[in-house]
Amino acid sequence: MRGIFISMEGPDGSGKSTQLELLKKYLSDKGYEIIITREPGGTRISEAVREIILNKEYTEMSYMTEALLYASARAQLVSEVIKPAIDGGKAVISDRFVDSSAVYQGMARGLGVENVYKMNEFAIQGVMPDLTIHLDLPAKVGISRKKDQKELDRMELEALDFHEKVAEGYRKLAELAPDRIYTIDATLPIDDIHGLIIEKIENILR
Amino acid sequence: MRGIFISMEGPDGSGKSTQLELLKKYLSDKGYEIIITREPGGTRISEAVREIILNKEYTEMSYMTEALLYASARAQLVSEVIKPAIDGGKAVISDRFVDSSAVYQGMARGLGVENVYKMNEFAIQGVMPDLTIHLDLPAKVGISRKKDQKELDRMELEALDFHEKVAEGYRKLAELAPDRIYTIDATLPIDDIHGLIIEKIENILR
Repeated sequence: MRGIFISMEGPDGSGKSTQLELLKKYLSDKGYEIIITREPGGTRISEAVREIILNKEYTEMSYMTEALLYASARAQLVSEVIKPAIDGGKAVISDRFVDSSAVYQGMARGLGVENVYKMNEFAIQGVMPDLTIHLDLPAKVGISRKKDQKELDRMELEALDFHEKVAEGYRKLAELAPDRIYTIDATLPIDDIHGLIIEKIENILR
Repeated sequence: MRGIFISMEGPDGSGKSTQLELLKKYLSDKGYEIIITREPGGTRISEAVREIILNKEYTEMSYMTEALLYASARAQLVSEVIKPAIDGGKAVISDRFVDSSAVYQGMARGLGVENVYKMNEFAIQGVMPDLTIHLDLPAKVGISRKKDQKELDRMELEALDFHEKVAEGYRKLAELAPDRIYTIDATLPIDDIHGLIIEKIENILR
């Protein structure tokens, strides 16, 4: 069995975790061994980097530092978890991957999408998702969902304007890579979204 | 008064800290306000990244992760400390800077000097030292000096072969940038080394 790598992308509160769990069950039922990861994080070194990135105290963090920290956490995740899993025929589902950096740091922070991908070439070493699910949601809806769930971290605490740039950034990115990025309206019922995702995956696996 | 940026480079145990203190006194006597920094570190965010980089537990760290972590710590140091200090007419002396990454990650780890400089362009944003002092020392001598001083960290614990690549890497790098990098035999007496350094700086300031 060939390994498969799927990333879940979208603004905070777009339902990535929920869909990831449903997708996990579906792929598991198909006989895949599943590896679930999240970014930033997914290895003990990457989780230590995550602590720095999301620390609310670090308001002085430069955008470039932020982008390089995401890339470093990603480098460890790719080399330690994602690449070995794909090579071993497993299904990897990641809650966020390099597109998050393209959108959050490249677009919303203004560092430039090309710069961010260039920096991340070092981190991902050619490993890209076979499919990226983009859960599209108005920024306002996403953040109000998050607020009800948990205490917000350094990224989530950004102003609404930032989250709007993120939501819009994902739409632009999806237009740039239509073969890989599949956009779904995240205001649809949970089961409908799941149905669209598995339909898409069936096509890819066929 | 124009700001000046000097970096101290060389293998562990080559006497960078000693020379840095002497240089600090010399430039201070000349009327400079002095900013001393070290890499990785020098800001609270960069020091948090340093903790991860040098943690002896993290033997699984990939070379690319290591290189990106150094770059992220550097990005914060440049934007928060070095650039504002140079712009403000101060003298910045840094215990290690981007050449350390070129040598340790680019050469000794084998990632390639060009790759490492490319990655670090994002971190340094055009800020390069006016002068780099390279304290040249056989690897064996440096490491045995270090061992007598302190408990060794993750980088210092590397095999002698690694430290030999570092010592040799610095020599190669100095040949590539002879106008910026000034090599001094670190087995000379401390005062002689200091004398050579201030002679060089007098030439630059003139």
